[in-house]
Formats: sequence, C-alpha cells, structure tokens
Amino acid sequence: MTFSLGDNSYGKAECRLVRVVRDGPRHEMIDLNVSTSLTGDLADTHLTGDNAKVLTTDAQKNTVYAFAREHGISTIEEFGLLLARHFVATQEPVHGARVGIERYSWNRLGDHSFARSGGAVRTAAVTLGPAGAEVVGGVRGLTLMNTTGSEFHGFPRDRYTTLAETTDRILATDVNAEWLFTGLDADWDAAYTAVTGALTGAFTGTHSLSLQQTLYAMGGRVIETVPEVAEVRLSLPNKHHFLFDLSPFGLDNPDEVYYAADRPYGLIEGTVKREK
Amino acid sequence: MTFSLGDNSYGKAECRLVRVVRDGPRHEMIDLNVSTSLTGDLADTHLTGDNAKVLTTDAQKNTVYAFAREHGISTIEEFGLLLARHFVATQEPVHGARVGIERYSWNRLGDHSFARSGGAVRTAAVTLGPAGAEVVGGVRGLTLMNTTGSEFHGFPRDRYTTLAETTDRILATDVNAEWLFTGLDADWDAAYTAVTGALTGAFTGTHSLSLQQTLYAMGGRVIETVPEVAEVRLSLPNKHHFLFDLSPFGLDNPDEVYYAADRPYGLIEGTVKREK
Amino acid sequence: MTFSLGDNSYGKAECRLVRVVRDGPRHEMIDLNVSTSLTGDLADTHLTGDNAKVLTTDAQKNTVYAFAREHGISTIEEFGLLLARHFVATQEPVHGARVGIERYSWNRLGDHSFARSGGAVRTAAVTLGPAGAEVVGGVRGLTLMNTTGSEFHGFPRDRYTTLAETTDRILATDVNAEWLFTGLDADWDAAYTAVTGALTGAFTGTHSLSLQQTLYAMGGRVIETVPEVAEVRLSLPNKHHFLFDLSPFGLDNPDEVYYAADRPYGLIEGTVKREK
Amino acid sequence: MTFSLGDNSYGKAECRLVRVVRDGPRHEMIDLNVSTSLTGDLADTHLTGDNAKVLTTDAQKNTVYAFAREHGISTIEEFGLLLARHFVATQEPVHGARVGIERYSWNRLGDHSFARSGGAVRTAAVTLGPAGAEVVGGVRGLTLMNTTGSEFHGFPRDRYTTLAETTDRILATDVNAEWLFTGLDADWDAAYTAVTGALTGAFTGTHSLSLQQTLYAMGGRVIETVPEVAEVRLSLPNKHHFLFDLSPFGLDNPDEVYYAADRPYGLIEGTVKREK
Repeated sequence: MTFSLGDNSYGKAECRLVRVVRDGPRHEMIDLNVSTSLTGDLADTHLTGDNAKVLTTDAQKNTVYAFAREHGISTIEEFGLLLARHFVATQEPVHGARVGIERYSWNRLGDHSFARSGGAVRTAAVTLGPAGAEVVGGVRGLTLMNTTGSEFHGFPRDRYTTLAETTDRILATDVNAEWLFTGLDADWDAAYTAVTGALTGAFTGTHSLSLQQTLYAMGGRVIETVPEVAEVRLSLPNKHHFLFDLSPFGLDNPDEVYYAADRPYGLIEGTVKREK
Repeated sequence: MTFSLGDNSYGKAECRLVRVVRDGPRHEMIDLNVSTSLTGDLADTHLTGDNAKVLTTDAQKNTVYAFAREHGISTIEEFGLLLARHFVATQEPVHGARVGIERYSWNRLGDHSFARSGGAVRTAAVTLGPAGAEVVGGVRGLTLMNTTGSEFHGFPRDRYTTLAETTDRILATDVNAEWLFTGLDADWDAAYTAVTGALTGAFTGTHSLSLQQTLYAMGGRVIETVPEVAEVRLSLPNKHHFLFDLSPFGLDNPDEVYYAADRPYGLIEGTVKREK
Repeated sequence: MTFSLGDNSYGKAECRLVRVVRDGPRHEMIDLNVSTSLTGDLADTHLTGDNAKVLTTDAQKNTVYAFAREHGISTIEEFGLLLARHFVATQEPVHGARVGIERYSWNRLGDHSFARSGGAVRTAAVTLGPAGAEVVGGVRGLTLMNTTGSEFHGFPRDRYTTLAETTDRILATDVNAEWLFTGLDADWDAAYTAVTGALTGAFTGTHSLSLQQTLYAMGGRVIETVPEVAEVRLSLPNKHHFLFDLSPFGLDNPDEVYYAADRPYGLIEGTVKREK
Repeated sequence: MTFSLGDNSYGKAECRLVRVVRDGPRHEMIDLNVSTSLTGDLADTHLTGDNAKVLTTDAQKNTVYAFAREHGISTIEEFGLLLARHFVATQEPVHGARVGIERYSWNRLGDHSFARSGGAVRTAAVTLGPAGAEVVGGVRGLTLMNTTGSEFHGFPRDRYTTLAETTDRILATDVNAEWLFTGLDADWDAAYTAVTGALTGAFTGTHSLSLQQTLYAMGGRVIETVPEVAEVRLSLPNKHHFLFDLSPFGLDNPDEVYYAADRPYGLIEGTVKREK
C-alpha cells in the first residue's frame, strides 16, 4: 500500500439546543449550538468499514440533549468539559474529544419572554486528550467602531503603494477572539465578562496608530485584567470606511460621509501571551 | 412585434453609507444601506439603447452620499423622502421613485465609540409617484421567544395530520413588520419606538392559542397605540422548537430540552388595518 | 374595535424533499424545496384562537412528502398544481393555495451517483384561487458575463453625474426571471429549457447599449420562442466590474484587469409581455 | 510587562479579481478571490504604532491587480507563488507570506460569453517562509450523492444510541479537500483535474460501510493516481437524508422519499498520506 491514514476525527456538528429552566414562574433559557468531535482508535472503520469502535454521531447528538436534562447547563465551558470527559471515559476506543459550543445572547423581556440580542456570540472550545483538558473561551461578531482617534502613517512606500497617510480615520472591526485558560477552574461567566470588557475598553480607549497597535493593546488588557487567561488570539478585520469624494459636486467632506466597503478588507491577526 | 414593455424600474441597490456628525467631542453616527429605484419614461433605453433619459445609477449613488453631506440625515423616513423628491423633481423623464433604507443599530460606548447591537434592523420604504408619496416603516430581525404561554389545539385532522395537540409550547419568531403611515408628517423616531414596543409587548403579553392570534394581537396593538399607522403587515416565521424525546434514555422532558429546527418552518403572514 | 384583519395566509416553508425513483439499477433523483401557503376562512384563529379551520402546517408538510410517494414528481409545475388543488379541494375553509418550489440541479455521474451542478435553480410558483390556477416558471442564480460587446453612453449629466462614458465594458448579471404561462398544459420541461436558452442566447447575442436594452432583448426572445409564455419578469443586478487603475504603477490596462465589486450594484427590473 | 506578542500576521483579504485575456476575438476570463498575509519583523507596529516596516494592505491589494497585468495568471498556484515571493523578496522586514486564492468556475458560452458554473470552487494556498515554499491545492463545494451503495451498521450501542442499523441509505457530502504537493513544479491544472476526478471516482465507486471508509478510499485514490500529491486532507459533512415516515398515512417508503436535513450533521475529517 502506498498510502496510510493520518490525523482523523469525527463527530456531530451544530446540535441546536435550547434549554429552559422552569423552577418557577421566572424561566431561564439558554440557546446553544453544540458540536462534538472524537479521536482515537478509528483505523478500522477507515480501512475496512468495521464500525465496532464508532460511537455513532447520532448517539453523540443524543448525549448532548440528554446531558442538558440530566446535568443542566451552568456555563458552556463546564458543559463542554462534561461532554468531552463523558465520551473519553465511557468509550474505550475514544482517546480524545473536542466540544465546540456557541451561545447566542438573549435579553430578558419578562418572566418567560426573551429577545435575541444579536451581535456578539460567546464561544467555548474544550479539548480533552491524553495530556489533559484545555478550555478556550471566545467571542465572535463583536463589532466596534471609533469615529476618530485612529491614525495611519509612516508606512514604507514601494512601487505599488498609493495609500495616502491619514491622521484621522474611522477604525472599525468585528472582534473575533479566543483565549486559552490557564486551568479548568475559572469562574467562566466572570471571565467572559471581564475579557469582553477588556477587549472593548482597550479598543475604545486606545488612540490608534495602527490596527496592530490596537490589537496588541486589546490582548494586553485581557492579560492584565483576567488572571485566568494564559493567552488571547485576535483576528481583526479592518472594516474599511472610505471617505466619499464629494469634491466633484463642489462639496467638502470633513470626515463625515463614508462608504462602508465589503471586500477586500484588511485582516490583522495576532496572539498576546502572558509572560511566564 | 409580438411583445411589448411592461412595468419597469432601475436604480442603485445597497449603497452602504456611514454618516458621522462631529459638532463637538461627542460624535453621532448613522449606519445605513440605501437603495434607489426610478420609474418613468424609460422605453427608449429598453427598445433602442438610447440613454438620453437614463440618470445613471452611479449618479443616484453619488446623490445619496452628497445629500448625506448637504442635508444631513435626521431619520431614514425623511432621508428617503428627500431623495425620492429630488429624483422626480429634477429629472423630467423620471415620474416615480422608490427609496428603501435599512438602518443598523449601534450602542454608544463613548464620545466617539460604538458597538453594533445586532438584532433588529429598522427599515423605511418611500414611494413617490404621480399620486403622491407613501412612507412605510419597518423592522426585521426582531427575534422573540416565549418559553410558555402558548398552546395549539383544536385543529382539524385530515389523513395527513399527525401533530399532537399541546397546551404548552415554545413560541418563537423573527418579526418582520412593515407599517404604512397615514401621512408624511409623523414623528418617525417616536413612531418606530412605539410600533416596536407595541409588537414586542403584544407578543410577550398575549397568551397564544395560535401564532395567527398572536399576529393579530401584535398588529392590533400597533393600530391602537400609534395613531399615525394606517396598517401593519406582519410576516412571522414559526421558529419551531421541538421537545427532544429523552424517553429512550429513561429520562422525562418536562418542557425543558428543545431542538431548535431550521427548516421547514411555519410562516404566518397577515395585515391588520385601521378601521376607517 | 378600531382595527380589522386584512389579507392573510399561512403555510409551511422550505420542505426539503429528495425523491428517488428506483425502478431499476439506474436511479432518478429529484431535489426540491417546497413551500405551501393557504388562504381562506381564517378569521377565527386570528380573532379568537379557534383553530377548527386551520389545517396545520405540519399536515401540509406531511402532504408534500406523502404526495411525493403517492403521485411521484414529474415536474415541479405539475407537483405544485397537484398540491394546491388538494388543499383547496379537501379543506372547505381553504379557498386558495400557493405552492412555491425550487429544484436544485444535479449532474448524473453514474447509475446512482450525482454531483450537484450549482448555479441556476429552477423555480415554480403555482397559485390557485377562486378564479382558477396560474403557473409561473422561473430561474434564479443564472450568472452570465460578456467580456465585451457592451457600451454605455449618451446618458444625461446632472450635478451628481461623474461616470465616464464607455464603449467597451464587462456586462455581468445574475438572471432572476419569472414567466407566467398562458395555460396549465404546457410541456413544462421543454418550456424551461427553451426559456433559459432564450435568456442566455439573447444575453450573449445582444450588442448592448444598456442593461435595459439587454433585458428587453432577453424578455422579447422568450416571448418569440416560447408560445406558452404570456409574460416574463426579469430582475437583473448589474454586477459591476471596474477597470483597476494601474497608471500609478506605470501600467496600462487595456480592458484586462477588473475589480469585481459587491455593493452597491445597479438593479434593472422589467416585464416583457406578449402582445394580445 | 506581563505580556508579550506571539504569532502574528496581517494582509488584505478577498481581493476580487477578474482577468480577461483579449488576444483575439476569443477571450479568456479568470475569476479569482485573492487573499494575502505577511509575517516578519512586525513587533514595532504592535508595540508602538511605528509603521516603518508595514507594507500597507492597500499596497498588497494593488500588487495583486498589477501582477495580474504584468505577469498574467496561468494557474492560481503559480500566481500565489509569484505574489508570495515578491513580498518576501522586496520587503526586508517580511519573512513569510501566505497567499490564498479561490477560483470560480465558468463555462464558455461563446467567444466572449460565459456562464458561472456554480458548485465546486478550486482553491490554492501558497505558504512561503524561511524553510521554503509549500503549495496546497484544494476544492470546496463539490457536492456528491449516492442514492444507494451505502450501509451503516455494526456500531456499538451505549445508553444514548438509538440509531437503527441500515444496509441501504443515501450518502451525500460536500467535499472539502486540500492536498499538499510534494514540490513546486507540478502541472497544476492537470493535478487539479486528476485529484477531483479521483475524489469523485472513489466516492461514486466505493460501496460504503461508513463515510470514514469512503473518505479513506477517496484520499487513497488521490495518492495512487496523482504522484505530485504528498497528502490530502478531507473534511466531509455527512449530509443526512432521512427516510420520511409515511406509515401514518398507510404508505410504505421503499427508500424513495427523503427529508434532507440541515443541522445537525455528521462531520468526518481525515488525512491520507503517501507512504515514504
């Protein structure tokens, strides 16, 4: 044989789960999207189609819903840990599990009424393997804008550089962040609030000379204010807002009228790590 | 010739416009998506390609951005009226105009900092023709859920009916609403707040025997509380949340664990009109 | 009461149905998205929540799947007629039905193997009411481009017109077309092939002075070549391809390098009708 | 300082480029989406906002369009190598570059007319660093279905397993594949044709006992038939088609009527490597 099996995994993606807690007239409600993925002794099904070691993805899905009933859902980080540990503990051929969860945000309107808040989605990714478990918290779709306080100049000019320097531009991004926890016993909800607060505070509070500088300030603020975070990875699209040229119409444009572009967009990515 | 030209229109769709007001350290910011569409004496360009009467869609776009500078943007309803009237007044071959605008919602974070709030998008559609102007306000993407207070029973059972009756289900929908104003001098911002408040209040406050009943209550509440609205059209997807059957695992499910389905979905549509 | 119920309807949207015909080793496969919508004597459920006249949307869904078994699916137009007639014929309170169907295209790879072809989606909308039935065929997502043979000039220049005239541009669009059939006994498959062939042939074969001219040529070609079509409605986005300005780099650009823009885009809409 | 900068990169994402070759009446046309990303000596801009080493993302975009004119585009793999080498060779602080390209497929309709074919998108990812260059070819959105020839049984049954065993099911997937080339001098176009042919051939030709088995057969077929490929990574969603239960209506369902589900879905991922 000229080929062999490399890394592989399988699971059930995007189990849409709504969990209601009805202990009294005032309900709690949690809205999740849960994905599971298992690794382990899976060569047989690939090589011969022998499924004796393949816990079905359907059973993985059932487990998600059953655990929501049996154990409730405190936080997505805990729920991910619970699921990952279950699969590895109960299925001998399964040596590792990854559980990814998105939590959609809703605002309370009444005892049993809610409005989806849109915007930022909280995420968690739990990875469990022979070396132990890792928890990564995250947020995506947190869209921020500063209408001033952003400059961009001093860059090199090669043959293909035409961009004008600016001392005042709109800076806007969709924050996509993932942060690795140092351990497994953080106060997950408090950490989420603290991290997103740090990200937002550093974005709005930094007089920016480049989106890279802002990124580093955001990541640094997280490290400084949330001791349970070991490192934070940021992916920040530069959502360009171009001043519309109104001069053909005899009008000036003192940084007031912008065209919000779709594509292309800048993409700034970086990790900020806690010093050991 | 065996064929002829029927209804036709043309314009520029989806001009993404961000307007900043910088009168002092505290900026205002408005984020819009503007689409224009013109009708009129347009046979020539269709039949012969003679464009002498075709105000270019590029010029329509330029007008959107220039007017944002020249006139500012108070409300999307007023901005739509301004644009529609301009095209019809200044271009002899143009007899009608439709301007559709979406406004994205942002929360203030500071003097010049904002976070997009996601969720509901405010819309306006202004139609100007020989008979005058009409303004339609709207909202889309307003996602609401009641975790109880919804029943569904008493329906007929034909050969293909298998649905169980229920006295307690989740009721969830994405409200898409459009309301026709009685005139052109409403307090547009106040009306938007009042209409969306009425929609939300009636959704959460109605003990529902069908989504149709809820729709009618929502529309009626709008008519009752917002005198400037002549009629309201609602399109309400029934976002099904199915109780997950946990009995194979020896578990009950007392209305707590749901699968949130994507497709198919119910779709309930109706108009509620003010009695003359 | 200050308000009353206006137009209303309800149904099940987006029933994803795959129908396999297994009469022998060579399978046939049809991939559909079916939406139903009913109108009629529906005031009770809106006003009081009395559902005695409400055939459930769940039953409508079941009917779609059951009819696929009982009657098979010859064409989406026939299947839509069958469903619409069933609902009106069997439910006394139901006075009208609208069935919308999308058919996704697959290419055969073998006796029981297929590859989805992407691109154009065939649609049908059947409307049945007291005045009888109407069938509208359609196509969406048919993306066409001419790299030359398109001019645009001779347009008026107002204060906001800056567009340069051109005698050679890319013309590209996503064809969205709907055609009303004159009757209910067309050869639906042949008509679809003929209409889409006419649309494509007229787009590629017309030396264009405006997208409006191309639209009219496309619609006219359909009327001329498909006698079962009474009128055709076209919605054609002008997918702008802008010549990239390479002069800052000392390069010319003889109509070779383009930026394909997303938004805004022109939108040309019109109906071409058979002369009586 | 308690934190430091980890891995980072920046670039311009999604430059939509259409390149026409007009050497005669018969035009060639290539439709791309190009993303660039650079790494290197970028600490200054993060730490202090000093941009002296930051080739602007705007210049990266300009380079993409200028190179399309200066060098033409033979294949996306070559174009990616050209761009990556340029950035690293000409910018001293830039030590690495990644260029990702998508190529959309169009069918020729005439000398200068094309129809977008939808479906599969060809991709390339070129990574250039101190250790040299790597080219990864790819395809996404290749949607395949077998209406028979797929079984799934013999799996373990834990407390949460309810799935019935089957000896005949629909197997459908969207193939997302990436293959690492052994070198930089492959016949890129021939390789793409051969790889996608191998993937399709193995999918349709494998009597499947699990999607994992099919994945391994697909990867193995690529390795066997395309010597320039070192390994292939496959991500295969199991697009579930569930037999619709027609028994409540007194109907059987001999593997003919299916509900095509959206979410959740199985997700099978694996790499197949050439043996050294």
